Amino acid sequence: MKALIINCTLKASPGTSNTEALAKVVADKLRGEEVEVTEVRAVDKSILPGVETDMGEGDGWPAIHDAVLASEILVVATPTWMARPSSIAQRVLERMDAMIAETDDMEKPVAYGKVAGVVVTGNEDGAHHVISEVSGALVDIGFTIPGQAWTYWNRGPGPGKSYLEDDSGHDWSRTTGETAAQNLVAAAKALAASPLPLPISE
Amino acid sequence: MKALIINCTLKASPGTSNTEALAKVVADKLRGEEVEVTEVRAVDKSILPGVETDMGEGDGWPAIHDAVLASEILVVATPTWMARPSSIAQRVLERMDAMIAETDDMEKPVAYGKVAGVVVTGNEDGAHHVISEVSGALVDIGFTIPGQAWTYWNRGPGPGKSYLEDDSGHDWSRTTGETAAQNLVAAAKALAASPLPLPISE
Amino acid sequence: MKALIINCTLKASPGTSNTEALAKVVADKLRGEEVEVTEVRAVDKSILPGVETDMGEGDGWPAIHDAVLASEILVVATPTWMARPSSIAQRVLERMDAMIAETDDMEKPVAYGKVAGVVVTGNEDGAHHVISEVSGALVDIGFTIPGQAWTYWNRGPGPGKSYLEDDSGHDWSRTTGETAAQNLVAAAKALAASPLPLPISE
Amino acid sequence: MKALIINCTLKASPGTSNTEALAKVVADKLRGEEVEVTEVRAVDKSILPGVETDMGEGDGWPAIHDAVLASEILVVATPTWMARPSSIAQRVLERMDAMIAETDDMEKPVAYGKVAGVVVTGNEDGAHHVISEVSGALVDIGFTIPGQAWTYWNRGPGPGKSYLEDDSGHDWSRTTGETAAQNLVAAAKALAASPLPLPISE
Repeated sequence: MKALIINCTLKASPGTSNTEALAKVVADKLRGEEVEVTEVRAVDKSILPGVETDMGEGDGWPAIHDAVLASEILVVATPTWMARPSSIAQRVLERMDAMIAETDDMEKPVAYGKVAGVVVTGNEDGAHHVISEVSGALVDIGFTIPGQAWTYWNRGPGPGKSYLEDDSGHDWSRTTGETAAQNLVAAAKALAASPLPLPISE
Repeated sequence: MKALIINCTLKASPGTSNTEALAKVVADKLRGEEVEVTEVRAVDKSILPGVETDMGEGDGWPAIHDAVLASEILVVATPTWMARPSSIAQRVLERMDAMIAETDDMEKPVAYGKVAGVVVTGNEDGAHHVISEVSGALVDIGFTIPGQAWTYWNRGPGPGKSYLEDDSGHDWSRTTGETAAQNLVAAAKALAASPLPLPISE
Repeated sequence: MKALIINCTLKASPGTSNTEALAKVVADKLRGEEVEVTEVRAVDKSILPGVETDMGEGDGWPAIHDAVLASEILVVATPTWMARPSSIAQRVLERMDAMIAETDDMEKPVAYGKVAGVVVTGNEDGAHHVISEVSGALVDIGFTIPGQAWTYWNRGPGPGKSYLEDDSGHDWSRTTGETAAQNLVAAAKALAASPLPLPISE
Repeated sequence: MKALIINCTLKASPGTSNTEALAKVVADKLRGEEVEVTEVRAVDKSILPGVETDMGEGDGWPAIHDAVLASEILVVATPTWMARPSSIAQRVLERMDAMIAETDDMEKPVAYGKVAGVVVTGNEDGAHHVISEVSGALVDIGFTIPGQAWTYWNRGPGPGKSYLEDDSGHDWSRTTGETAAQNLVAAAKALAASPLPLPISE
């Protein structure tokens, strides 16, 4: 089983990413469940604006698109900016828009066998909203969202320290993230054994 | 297999509910898949404000709570008011908040074996947001949201006719709803055969 | 100048309301600015479901509706449940839906001269989303939302203590709330001196 | 009086932008009110990821930042993708995050004298949510959102035609947009005559 974690931090490598640090908790647990995990920092790739799978020369998305297709599990990890998913996370969702109409050789939407989860960090309030926004978009595309397949860290009220600067609540974020990893694996196995059927056409 | 559809219209019975009309498309398809379907119009029950399973004398929630527990599939059907889920839908979610800490005799959250979908009607824009809001809350509680397990109808821009007053787009809403029904059944069967594990504690 | 604060806690009086406690910071500052402040705990009134100004016998909304009309400033204070505005807050917004079409004797929407702000408390993440949801609905109705006309308190990550149980961050929530009060007063005065014009009809 | 309209379409110039077409309704009305209007298509500029005012070499944001500061009115015009504001709109909001801490020579946040509105187009449901998201972020920064300072166009249910391909509802979107323009001008004048005070510090 394969998992792809797309880190949607605004910081290019090798900048320190709080989101990567919390996503690592989920990645480690996935690996412990014998999942092969790939992590991509999306801002390092040149993901062009648009809603087609390949936006032409210089577009970094097609390679990530292929990695999504090759994985049973997708984790979108994003910081919270202005209490919302990062522009990089929205860019990733926009580029997955084309997957709604993309089908496998059985005419089934390519995301139908896949599950997805969300990891959020921020220095302030916003995580539950980000989880709903990202999950809602992924369900649209055809991903299944297992129960409690997310974790987050922030520390309100008001702006404050980041995940790597403040140890408070790390245990909660870790056990919540490990539970998310378990649920992603279990739901991916369940769907593999008993898949979603062909959608009904108009 | 059992499904519970909670209609969160603001209109008491026997008032005509557009949301009920669209939810019927999903109900019919579920029945065609041999699911036993129960429909509840929440506004007819006296669901008291609060976040415990039983808020005391006169509370209509405990009976609905038991029906949720008895079903593998939950469908929250809601109108769009001020572009948001109805106050009745939010009341239902609030009362399910207590289910986060409610476990079965295996110490597993009671929603872990369940799947959920969303049906939305409105005379104006707002459905995708409602779907994200309701799905996000249900994932929190432990429900799994299958890919494309929703349907909606509205007709923008601006305020206009209701579902039962305007035939445009009914085919799209119907096939989308039938697909949702299929995906709910398939995912419920998948989780029954291969369940989510016990969550990890802090 | 008059302000109405609608507390949308789920707890009936005389239960302790964290939301009331934080709203008091805003109320005190408004009073310091010579505003006459009225506070209503909406759950104590019987606000019936519906989207008309008067839903008939036993409806507690018409009195609150009149208080809204009599005030230049509205503050919606709400707890966060399932990371969303409370069902009581959504009920209040639904009942204000009718104000979109309600005009004064100059044919102007009744909310055009009014400003609004938001106060949010919770034991977990969700405040910014609640502020956006409530503000968005109020702008729809015709209220003006002054810059930074809100405050909140919560303490993540994960569920934890409530506002009255944890002193952390109270200074931030207080100064933010006092700033909100000032901005509400200033913007209300500005609109009184230089009002919004008649809307353009189709 | 000056207005800046930031078009957050994903399409680079000279590609046809539905969002630009609807924003033009607002721009024309603003010009009719003697406002000097500048329109920027953000995707044409190289707005780098980050949350500082100047992200260094090749960053196209500082010029737009200066145009925001020079204007009393800001209009964020965005398409709806995955039912959410475009990645370009979120990028613009992220870059304005730095304005929260940016003050004028009176120590007042630079957005305190400014008003903002929203224009949304899409081939499907999502506009009210986009309006709430963008308005909520702008209020955070210090912009005032006048009542009904937005317009939108889409045509549900399900994906369909774009604004320039379908004439239905254009009158509603136009009069709503003209009303928005009027309200932006009136509120900007009101705030200029009677400004928001200095925020209170912790």
